[in-house]
Amino acid sequence: MAALNSIPGEVHCAQDYEILARHFLSEADYAYIAGGCGRDSTLRANREAFDSVRLWPRLLRDVRHGHLASTLLGHALPHPIMLAPLAYQTLAHPQGEIDVARAAAATDSCLILSTLSGRSIEETMPHAGEARWFQLYFQADQAATLDLVRRAESAACQVLVVTLDTAIKLPSLGALRSGFSMPARVVAANLTNYRAPAQLALARGQSRIFQGAMAGAPNLDDLRWLLGQTRLPIVVKGVLHPEDALMLKAMGIAGLVVSNHGGRSLDGAPASLEVLPAIRAAVGPGYPLLLDSGVRSGTDIFRGLAAGANAVLVGRLQVYALAVAGALGVAHMLRLLREELEACMAQAGCATLADIGPQMIYRNKDEA
Amino acid sequence: MAALNSIPGEVHCAQDYEILARHFLSEADYAYIAGGCGRDSTLRANREAFDSVRLWPRLLRDVRHGHLASTLLGHALPHPIMLAPLAYQTLAHPQGEIDVARAAAATDSCLILSTLSGRSIEETMPHAGEARWFQLYFQADQAATLDLVRRAESAACQVLVVTLDTAIKLPSLGALRSGFSMPARVVAANLTNYRAPAQLALARGQSRIFQGAMAGAPNLDDLRWLLGQTRLPIVVKGVLHPEDALMLKAMGIAGLVVSNHGGRSLDGAPASLEVLPAIRAAVGPGYPLLLDSGVRSGTDIFRGLAAGANAVLVGRLQVYALAVAGALGVAHMLRLLREELEACMAQAGCATLADIGPQMIYRNKDEA
Amino acid sequence: MAALNSIPGEVHCAQDYEILARHFLSEADYAYIAGGCGRDSTLRANREAFDSVRLWPRLLRDVRHGHLASTLLGHALPHPIMLAPLAYQTLAHPQGEIDVARAAAATDSCLILSTLSGRSIEETMPHAGEARWFQLYFQADQAATLDLVRRAESAACQVLVVTLDTAIKLPSLGALRSGFSMPARVVAANLTNYRAPAQLALARGQSRIFQGAMAGAPNLDDLRWLLGQTRLPIVVKGVLHPEDALMLKAMGIAGLVVSNHGGRSLDGAPASLEVLPAIRAAVGPGYPLLLDSGVRSGTDIFRGLAAGANAVLVGRLQVYALAVAGALGVAHMLRLLREELEACMAQAGCATLADIGPQMIYRNKDEA
Amino acid sequence: MAALNSIPGEVHCAQDYEILARHFLSEADYAYIAGGCGRDSTLRANREAFDSVRLWPRLLRDVRHGHLASTLLGHALPHPIMLAPLAYQTLAHPQGEIDVARAAAATDSCLILSTLSGRSIEETMPHAGEARWFQLYFQADQAATLDLVRRAESAACQVLVVTLDTAIKLPSLGALRSGFSMPARVVAANLTNYRAPAQLALARGQSRIFQGAMAGAPNLDDLRWLLGQTRLPIVVKGVLHPEDALMLKAMGIAGLVVSNHGGRSLDGAPASLEVLPAIRAAVGPGYPLLLDSGVRSGTDIFRGLAAGANAVLVGRLQVYALAVAGALGVAHMLRLLREELEACMAQAGCATLADIGPQMIYRNKDEA
Repeated sequence: MAALNSIPGEVHCAQDYEILARHFLSEADYAYIAGGCGRDSTLRANREAFDSVRLWPRLLRDVRHGHLASTLLGHALPHPIMLAPLAYQTLAHPQGEIDVARAAAATDSCLILSTLSGRSIEETMPHAGEARWFQLYFQADQAATLDLVRRAESAACQVLVVTLDTAIKLPSLGALRSGFSMPARVVAANLTNYRAPAQLALARGQSRIFQGAMAGAPNLDDLRWLLGQTRLPIVVKGVLHPEDALMLKAMGIAGLVVSNHGGRSLDGAPASLEVLPAIRAAVGPGYPLLLDSGVRSGTDIFRGLAAGANAVLVGRLQVYALAVAGALGVAHMLRLLREELEACMAQAGCATLADIGPQMIYRNKDEA
Repeated sequence: MAALNSIPGEVHCAQDYEILARHFLSEADYAYIAGGCGRDSTLRANREAFDSVRLWPRLLRDVRHGHLASTLLGHALPHPIMLAPLAYQTLAHPQGEIDVARAAAATDSCLILSTLSGRSIEETMPHAGEARWFQLYFQADQAATLDLVRRAESAACQVLVVTLDTAIKLPSLGALRSGFSMPARVVAANLTNYRAPAQLALARGQSRIFQGAMAGAPNLDDLRWLLGQTRLPIVVKGVLHPEDALMLKAMGIAGLVVSNHGGRSLDGAPASLEVLPAIRAAVGPGYPLLLDSGVRSGTDIFRGLAAGANAVLVGRLQVYALAVAGALGVAHMLRLLREELEACMAQAGCATLADIGPQMIYRNKDEA
Repeated sequence: MAALNSIPGEVHCAQDYEILARHFLSEADYAYIAGGCGRDSTLRANREAFDSVRLWPRLLRDVRHGHLASTLLGHALPHPIMLAPLAYQTLAHPQGEIDVARAAAATDSCLILSTLSGRSIEETMPHAGEARWFQLYFQADQAATLDLVRRAESAACQVLVVTLDTAIKLPSLGALRSGFSMPARVVAANLTNYRAPAQLALARGQSRIFQGAMAGAPNLDDLRWLLGQTRLPIVVKGVLHPEDALMLKAMGIAGLVVSNHGGRSLDGAPASLEVLPAIRAAVGPGYPLLLDSGVRSGTDIFRGLAAGANAVLVGRLQVYALAVAGALGVAHMLRLLREELEACMAQAGCATLADIGPQMIYRNKDEA
Repeated sequence: MAALNSIPGEVHCAQDYEILARHFLSEADYAYIAGGCGRDSTLRANREAFDSVRLWPRLLRDVRHGHLASTLLGHALPHPIMLAPLAYQTLAHPQGEIDVARAAAATDSCLILSTLSGRSIEETMPHAGEARWFQLYFQADQAATLDLVRRAESAACQVLVVTLDTAIKLPSLGALRSGFSMPARVVAANLTNYRAPAQLALARGQSRIFQGAMAGAPNLDDLRWLLGQTRLPIVVKGVLHPEDALMLKAMGIAGLVVSNHGGRSLDGAPASLEVLPAIRAAVGPGYPLLLDSGVRSGTDIFRGLAAGANAVLVGRLQVYALAVAGALGVAHMLRLLREELEACMAQAGCATLADIGPQMIYRNKDEA
């Protein structure tokens, strides 16, 4: 079904876009978007982690001065709901990231554009609000990487987000079984002018993985090099281990996205939400931590903030809403999430993000 | 199906009214009554909490002198099963709260009439027994609040129950999806003579939640004011946190209802039964604590008492029985609950409510 | 279907009789036999307890001298599988307890005949082997109780088993919903010559449970009186609490059956298997403890012995096998159980019952 | 369906052979192969153990020098995926173990040929690579046992694997109910020239298990005798208890296979994966430990190595792939497993097997 030009009536909560989107995407495309990787165990772990966190509301707290605003990496953040970088959103809607950017501008949301976006930096960013970040994948050719940085700078991006958890991407078995393949019309618009990386010739006994796919994976030197190339703050996405967090903080990384790539990276990895408290404990209270992977409701956002995040990234709901109703759908979904978060805060007795901490999480004594 | 004038034959336990009621309510009305809020996670948590509590029976205890009587807030309580305040019971039966009151009188049960009852204080209370309490929602207009208090006093109510956990009420997704809306014939009979609150005009950037819905939410000052307006004991309903319990006790609140509003307030809140022991530990052994949310059987009542409650509130079973067979159904349901509790006590070796304590709960050493 | 005169071919393990029996019993009779009480939560707990116990086999243990024999209450016990006392077995097969006794004799199994048996002590016991016990329910009339004891003594019973956990018996909701009622042809054959107890007249305000059903429940004095009336060892059935176990041991009770009446007594009580280790710890290593409730295989018997039992009682499998193929079925079922136990012991590296202890149970360190 | 001569297109991961094989095996044969024993509880425990282990990936680790090679019992092991000894593979494919050996040679995999193979040592081993082991069941006749050892030595086997956990083999209830019986064409090719063991005559009162099936079970003396008969290293298969592991190590056994026979030995035994860490802790870091039972993916292999194994054995996937596409299928399955392991290592940040240890396993603090 073609995307609507109006907000559908049957959406009662942000997650309803997940259900509706089935009617606006082919079965194979839906399987590709909805799936994680492998047997989807980390995809499920993300949801189970959110669902298992219970909130402990307080009574009689005055929330009439309540708001969602905070500051992140030196910029005002009107609310803590950010649009995660997603590849190839033209798969879901012809306007792709352009419509996402328009929704971001309309809802004061921070947009993180993917290196693999279906629409280029130059096409997309003019439609975004001031809060615009660029997600960077290291390219095989360093010059191409640097060019992407410069283009992001030129487009007034405030922050670079370097994703480090996907040297190898394997679709979910569900997507494979559905016969999904990326349609020819969907391209990585940012990369069309760069040379394709040379085909690697493996010697006998060499591994397609170690000496093949991983040959170009970014390493510490690449990251250090990048830190020297730009004055933009660099955030690393894909962190799940406190020791990695500490190392990255020590080398000058400005913040982290705790993420398992929405369950699309290593099947069997823990839920982002679950490892977040240990990472917060490691980096200390002042360091920017964003949570990604599994967020489906305002209550989930509350859970993420209570577990130690400064803000959260919303991935799949973004593309589902885009598929259903383009920019309008994404903006509507973001407004729903925001009101769900506010309602949750009001009922729990929290007026501001600063009030949402671990003390708002109920743990019975058997779990303690 | 219209409500019966006789007790249906196929009811083998109080909870059977939950099953039968499906035939006496429209699908949407049933969804509205049965649902919690949001994704119903707290609704499920309530049942899981009861189901997971195991009883540890003792042998050869003499229970021939057994009974269910106790004293609560200075009044004799023939048995510890109270009728929870429910809004709009005329949705389920034309007689609504009048029939509930008749059942309460017939079974020596304490009735707690809701501010939002479908039948007014004046219509209902003449049919109730002596044990009659009034549940108070603060009104936007203080004069209206005070008038409700005076009307409750005039109707010989013994206790005021102030509900504090529902500044925002969101129906469950199930109810929303069923298309439920309150029929025009069902009104809040107690409030028809009060002015509707003025429509709030929000400034740009203000939140529909924080500056809108929460603008009139009661705060500490409101509660202190109320304590000065009446000589009736005030009980607060909606407590889930030991620190809130301590604060309320310290300010002169006479007792508490540990409740998550039957899973209809904050989706994600813990089960009432689960937090009860910590609240009992905080307020000490002598302070009145009532348990609400999730009770479906006499065994559940035993579990609630063993966890620290002085009595329990029965909500949904009340309206299900009302829908099935009016006053007769509610009275029958209460009698079944009472006998289920007595049978459970007899089999467990407890003759009186004082015998039901934490020592009657089995916990295996892995859980300890 | 009428009971077979031969062993059915499709029985691969003792528990297969549970499946087959559906074809030999009416739906309502099956529901009555298979059900527990209330919501069947204890019935399920029994099975979950067995299923969750894992065995830790040892290698290279010599079991060529293996056997199942032990001594119990001064009598040789060829194997530790006893036939639990079951009421009204003529419901399942016209020969009822007579056929069970014949199977017991054929397989060297100890028979425990119920007070409520469908065939009388005098009809049944001549068919049993030497290992014959009688289960005693206290009667309203003490003279009747004493007469039952004398009849058991005359029938050469070795032990009296006094059941104390069923002052009130409530069928399962499943049995109630199936419309089960005991057919007129099925009677408590041992009791036909005793006067029916007088109908109790309750005063207003008295409870049908406390002052009604429990009026005749046995108390400590009754048990002491019984100890003075017979030289037979008295075993108490229905113990779930270590303190009750200690009290009973102290007053001269010869042994205990740890039992929740197959989940037919207090719905919500813990699994017998689960409480057994604490009871064994309380009474010490030398005191006779039998396990009842939930046994369905030789592996379950191993689990029970490892948890501290000297022997186990088999209830429902007995009546299922009886329904399918009378004495032949019961004998076959017992032989299967016995070989299942032997195979389990051999694979685990245990040659005798004395080798089966808590050290044979695997607990991972998270459970420890 | 007859086995294919090509790799089927719809195989996206090694485990897909499990699904496909249903079309290449009769229902009864599939039930026999897929089943465990008894109620399959250990079969399920194996999978649950793997599924519950979560991996903790690290970022920015350089894996470009990555490989899977190690040394085991003095021999180079190109990768840690070994072909478990399976009985009667001619059931699945006319070529049986010959095709498995060809796949092993083509993929540098170590083959462990079963005593009960459908193709003999002499038929099979010429097709295998250098890495060839022989699995030995003790025979009733010691001369036959010794002859098997000599034949394995003659066939240049590097290691003898003595299986000790299957004195009694009981098929699963599923296999029994499917009516499975071994077809006449499938024989234990290695044993056709030995005398069948004499039929044991049991005296009255003797047990078919203890004095029957277990009469010929190997004991400590047999194992000591074997150690004196060959210079080949002897590995024991079937170990689940740390104390057995210590004893076997102390008596000169060269390594152990931690195994519950794929859930086909003692139903109720713990998962191999679960007991592995305790066994590794007992025997120390240098001692060869192989993991068997439940491996279905490269991620599972990673889990096994992280839990303390030097290599893993693959059983059912082997016969499934054989049934689908003979030697080609087995080789393809092995290549998939290998790449799955490499991808998992690359994503987790492990370049070599030495990098895979307990630190790669995520345990949340509630489990710790």
